[in-house]
Amino acid sequence: MSTTDTPVRLRAVAAPDQPDVTPALEQLYRGFEQELLVPLWTEIGDLMPAHPRSRAVPHLWRWERLLRLAAEAGDIVPVGRGGERRAIALANPALGGRPFATPTLWAAIQYLMPGEDAPEHRHTQHAFRFVVEGSGVWTVVGGNGERAVGDAVPMRRGDFLPQAGWNWHAHHNATAAPMAWIDGLDIPFQYLTEAQFFQFGRTDIDAAERITPQRSRSERLWGHPGLRPLSVGEVAPGSPLLAYKWEHTDAALTDQLQLEREGYGGTVEPGHAAVRFTNPHNGADVLPTIRAEFHRIARHAQTAPVRETGSSVYQVFDGSGTVTVGETTWSVTRGDLFVVPSWESLSVTSESGRTDSDSGALDLFRFSDAPVFEALHLDRQETVR
Amino acid sequence: MSTTDTPVRLRAVAAPDQPDVTPALEQLYRGFEQELLVPLWTEIGDLMPAHPRSRAVPHLWRWERLLRLAAEAGDIVPVGRGGERRAIALANPALGGRPFATPTLWAAIQYLMPGEDAPEHRHTQHAFRFVVEGSGVWTVVGGNGERAVGDAVPMRRGDFLPQAGWNWHAHHNATAAPMAWIDGLDIPFQYLTEAQFFQFGRTDIDAAERITPQRSRSERLWGHPGLRPLSVGEVAPGSPLLAYKWEHTDAALTDQLQLEREGYGGTVEPGHAAVRFTNPHNGADVLPTIRAEFHRIARHAQTAPVRETGSSVYQVFDGSGTVTVGETTWSVTRGDLFVVPSWESLSVTSESGRTDSDSGALDLFRFSDAPVFEALHLDRQETVR
Amino acid sequence: MSTTDTPVRLRAVAAPDQPDVTPALEQLYRGFEQELLVPLWTEIGDLMPAHPRSRAVPHLWRWERLLRLAAEAGDIVPVGRGGERRAIALANPALGGRPFATPTLWAAIQYLMPGEDAPEHRHTQHAFRFVVEGSGVWTVVGGNGERAVGDAVPMRRGDFLPQAGWNWHAHHNATAAPMAWIDGLDIPFQYLTEAQFFQFGRTDIDAAERITPQRSRSERLWGHPGLRPLSVGEVAPGSPLLAYKWEHTDAALTDQLQLEREGYGGTVEPGHAAVRFTNPHNGADVLPTIRAEFHRIARHAQTAPVRETGSSVYQVFDGSGTVTVGETTWSVTRGDLFVVPSWESLSVTSESGRTDSDSGALDLFRFSDAPVFEALHLDRQETVR
Amino acid sequence: MSTTDTPVRLRAVAAPDQPDVTPALEQLYRGFEQELLVPLWTEIGDLMPAHPRSRAVPHLWRWERLLRLAAEAGDIVPVGRGGERRAIALANPALGGRPFATPTLWAAIQYLMPGEDAPEHRHTQHAFRFVVEGSGVWTVVGGNGERAVGDAVPMRRGDFLPQAGWNWHAHHNATAAPMAWIDGLDIPFQYLTEAQFFQFGRTDIDAAERITPQRSRSERLWGHPGLRPLSVGEVAPGSPLLAYKWEHTDAALTDQLQLEREGYGGTVEPGHAAVRFTNPHNGADVLPTIRAEFHRIARHAQTAPVRETGSSVYQVFDGSGTVTVGETTWSVTRGDLFVVPSWESLSVTSESGRTDSDSGALDLFRFSDAPVFEALHLDRQETVR
Repeated sequence: MSTTDTPVRLRAVAAPDQPDVTPALEQLYRGFEQELLVPLWTEIGDLMPAHPRSRAVPHLWRWERLLRLAAEAGDIVPVGRGGERRAIALANPALGGRPFATPTLWAAIQYLMPGEDAPEHRHTQHAFRFVVEGSGVWTVVGGNGERAVGDAVPMRRGDFLPQAGWNWHAHHNATAAPMAWIDGLDIPFQYLTEAQFFQFGRTDIDAAERITPQRSRSERLWGHPGLRPLSVGEVAPGSPLLAYKWEHTDAALTDQLQLEREGYGGTVEPGHAAVRFTNPHNGADVLPTIRAEFHRIARHAQTAPVRETGSSVYQVFDGSGTVTVGETTWSVTRGDLFVVPSWESLSVTSESGRTDSDSGALDLFRFSDAPVFEALHLDRQETVR
Repeated sequence: MSTTDTPVRLRAVAAPDQPDVTPALEQLYRGFEQELLVPLWTEIGDLMPAHPRSRAVPHLWRWERLLRLAAEAGDIVPVGRGGERRAIALANPALGGRPFATPTLWAAIQYLMPGEDAPEHRHTQHAFRFVVEGSGVWTVVGGNGERAVGDAVPMRRGDFLPQAGWNWHAHHNATAAPMAWIDGLDIPFQYLTEAQFFQFGRTDIDAAERITPQRSRSERLWGHPGLRPLSVGEVAPGSPLLAYKWEHTDAALTDQLQLEREGYGGTVEPGHAAVRFTNPHNGADVLPTIRAEFHRIARHAQTAPVRETGSSVYQVFDGSGTVTVGETTWSVTRGDLFVVPSWESLSVTSESGRTDSDSGALDLFRFSDAPVFEALHLDRQETVR
Repeated sequence: MSTTDTPVRLRAVAAPDQPDVTPALEQLYRGFEQELLVPLWTEIGDLMPAHPRSRAVPHLWRWERLLRLAAEAGDIVPVGRGGERRAIALANPALGGRPFATPTLWAAIQYLMPGEDAPEHRHTQHAFRFVVEGSGVWTVVGGNGERAVGDAVPMRRGDFLPQAGWNWHAHHNATAAPMAWIDGLDIPFQYLTEAQFFQFGRTDIDAAERITPQRSRSERLWGHPGLRPLSVGEVAPGSPLLAYKWEHTDAALTDQLQLEREGYGGTVEPGHAAVRFTNPHNGADVLPTIRAEFHRIARHAQTAPVRETGSSVYQVFDGSGTVTVGETTWSVTRGDLFVVPSWESLSVTSESGRTDSDSGALDLFRFSDAPVFEALHLDRQETVR
Repeated sequence: MSTTDTPVRLRAVAAPDQPDVTPALEQLYRGFEQELLVPLWTEIGDLMPAHPRSRAVPHLWRWERLLRLAAEAGDIVPVGRGGERRAIALANPALGGRPFATPTLWAAIQYLMPGEDAPEHRHTQHAFRFVVEGSGVWTVVGGNGERAVGDAVPMRRGDFLPQAGWNWHAHHNATAAPMAWIDGLDIPFQYLTEAQFFQFGRTDIDAAERITPQRSRSERLWGHPGLRPLSVGEVAPGSPLLAYKWEHTDAALTDQLQLEREGYGGTVEPGHAAVRFTNPHNGADVLPTIRAEFHRIARHAQTAPVRETGSSVYQVFDGSGTVTVGETTWSVTRGDLFVVPSWESLSVTSESGRTDSDSGALDLFRFSDAPVFEALHLDRQETVR
């Protein structure tokens, strides 16, 4: 490889912590380029900063615009083998136009028309679905796998549905209305670490899988609090519970705020209730690489600014308020999505609702890459004074 | 210590695998006795058998007799400091009259009269309560501990209430009727290993703790399926969920049998549904030394005979049937308690109920010392042909 | 079972925390006896003390007397199938003449005559050997197991040789001199919990196993510090390293005392160096139920009195000193064995040696049941003021 | 953000699995661009391939050229605060000229002139040093930390020296000759996940730290096989043993090949001995994100082609041979470095040495990102037929 086509380009610059710019240095740098070498001393500031300085920036996507574009795509983009899903991903403006909400996380709106199916496949990427509005789609999980007939999991407003890697899955819309939801995956993380496997499954799901139960089989086995079914032996990584229903999440958050009012704590900080979705088999995060949580900020409450290593994506589930990420502040309302890059602080204020019937609470769904950081002992968190 | 008062007594016997009985051997044995020594060759058959041969025997206690005696005790034995609890324990007939249901497990009926309190204490012994009938007692947990006011936990038919070691707790009967339930503890295990600590708490609980909520604070924080409260940081050993309500246990068992009928498995074996009570924080057993489960044997179903290392205590919660432990068979009905010693096989048959309205299922609560065996890699199980 | 042959015997006594002795109480107690029931209130003081009160007592066995009796046994008691080993166990004087050094631990002197073999067997009891003097015996491990030819492990003064449960093993004395060593096992613990399995192996080991290498195969695979052999996949519970040679133990203790002298810590307390034998596969205790350690108390140093839950057996490896267990104090010298019951304090003083060449340090080998207590969250320790 | 400056660029293309290129689709794509959205269907082939297709390529760097350039840098580039280290990193030709050997791993040659110091700092990036030739540098670890005086760790040919994140460290060359070695870090991984913290320490180390012991304090505490020092309580992530000396690595590999010759296995495959450097505290990988191993391929032996998720860097430590990575084959000799991208197969052949005295074995040092993949359940491996 000659110097002219080596990808390495080194520029000697005059700076206090750099070697003197001399012909010898220039010649050394040409030698480095030729041998595909880069010195630490020109790169250390970028690669080893005093604290994380994310390449991503805070950004907000308005739900109404996403939904409008997704609906347009519903009219003109078919769903089928190859494209696999009518999913449209958030592209952080500072990540080069790639469909990465943050350096590690994928977030997309998915849209399925009445009667449509999305074909079966599986992949090592860990995934989930979260429903901010609507209902009518069932996800069929595991049909090609150990069970002869896949488990049809209903999706409704407020439901969180994890999908651990390498499980077969398809979707079908059993109603006369389109439905949208968000998909979260670790696609960027697995892209960067180069861990991905993908396999096509059946193009069509069976008639027996086109059922529309109110509860999936996974919920009937694993959805009872603190109770493990003895019929299940080994459990694969990731939660065996395929749906976390809104009624439970809502009840847990309501209970925490009520306990706080009774004087018994229960909240993370005043007016701030929060739950983490966990794997009932072992209490760990629902997915090996993704943490998912639900936060409720009571009317007029404000969260202390906190920053953490790792990045998060939030979606407003209900209510309205103000969000400050680093130096950026937005007013947010139902469905809006925003990202919090690594080590950027976040603070949220719940604002008085527009109608008297409104509880005034701001409900936020959150997912992050925290399990990666914790597994590798790279997690840090601090409250910003 | 002279030979005459040494506790060691050795007898030379003529047997194929024993040394020849000679004056020299007799003299050697006298030397052993004097020095407090015992040879392996005279003991190996007892200490190192081919498989566990329990000192305990299978035994059945009839609930009606226990309840009658407990009620008599209610009339003449007060509850208070020192005696601490009106609890009457099962004494396995082969364990020397000690209050040990098995070599490791304690099982007792406890009885509290209308308006009575049982005073606060704590101990390292891990404990639980299970309610086969009745209601009206609240257990107040943690009053002296980190919370200013203890958590009042209601107890009703079918509820399972774990109490990990070293938590303060008291009871009060808030009703006009007496109430009985069973206590399970690892008292024998901690007695044998000599691990026990005990501390007296307050003699009287506070007025603020005499409340009678339908749900404890622990259930409001930890009782939502798959949801972890973010306000709780470090979690001590043992479940933070203080009550596993019957409605959930019943629903889980019903779901399993229904899944089986639909052709999707879900049961341990045909007609045999089972759940394990687990710690929602980590999915492990509810207590470090005690496993607790609930089994439902459908009408006319029979379980395969299985034997395991470690011992169990069962209580019939509902229905009637036939139980075979080792060579012993009993007809059992509501409330009856029986023990399964280590490596004795167990098989259960559900028998047709006496009335048409009866579902015919046999419901069994079980607890065992399995976590001890699993933690130390001593667990073995096999189906007996 | 009539009252006359029930093992339960209850005596109503007049005491402040006991119910009034009345005919009704006596009748109640007769009812309890008949139904095999024992109330908590008569037993709580024994079963649930404020802190562990061991049934065992501190006791010392003199090595010279053990060795003399073992040598006599060598002359008149053969080793063979059935008796299995010429092992003579310490019987704590307060444990009813049973061969239990403490309620959970077995400690015995084993003795093998020149040319003798001890036949192959395996058992779930976890075991080890420690050599206080002599050499010449090889233990052959795993001959019936996955390896066609067993691994011949040499035994020499100072060596510690763990033997995790359910591995085949035999011994052969390849020299012209008898050899003695101590065996430690969890026989009492497995007896109390009823976990034991035992199987006879070959009566004679193969000629190919009568080799006398200086290092076992296990040491060649696992005995290099911090290096794991990639050829070994799954590792069973218990250490795969079958010998911990004295040269390493001695070097580690010497290094610690030297680091202390250089001002860098390294010791547990001034003049007290200590190492724990650990499983190189996972850093845990060498055996699931037994902890083994080596302590060196420098000349004239004294350890602070410490008490712990769980029991220990110590053997003096070298030097002499004074040992205080609870209220009992002994002068000890090479080979002497003593036990420390649960929650009894221990303090050790190293005394000036008898000769000028003596380093004056007191070297102690220790084993205990600590892994049981830690696995079940029952461990407590405190320094006694 | 107007369309003109959005980073998102979408091109409608006519392809079987893409939507028909129509004005409506073009308009939809403009809408996506404006809202910073990217559809899955245009990206799925790149992001979710059937198996990992690394952006990195196999590449070889010749040690003699690296060493020559490093020596030139020694003459003209000073070492000091800001640049921190005279380290020159391998830049994979397919990773855009960035100093990334693979997408997750950093590998560099570091060079220190006689008498030179490299200033103290610490960073969350996990690091190690491996010495292919030379000696004379000591790394001083922990001087600013909990110990008043840093631990001086010698570096010599064959030694592996892990340095877990966030420990202070400096280097000093105590000899009259320059010294080179390789540094391995997880800089790219922490850069991609944005986890990095960095802190400057002292510019000069103390005179008391300029000592040149043959063994570090860490080795004296932790370097004895299977022995844990009881004086150390909590242990931070990453190995507390700061040097894995060549004599142990060499002995372990020699033992494995000898066991194989004796018929007892011990090797990964015929003629292929291998050890993993592990943390003596817990048996895990030495660093949370980096695995390090040493492989010895006996004369004329060849390894089966294997591919794995995750990437590796190898350095030839001794001998010569042929290496095939994916489709690329090189002849390699001492010091040469090469990379194996994710899911590219690797096979190595040891070739006959040039002199009679040569053992003919090929010795390879390897490091990889495997702990990341295992912690997140993303590891896969297969032998390529």
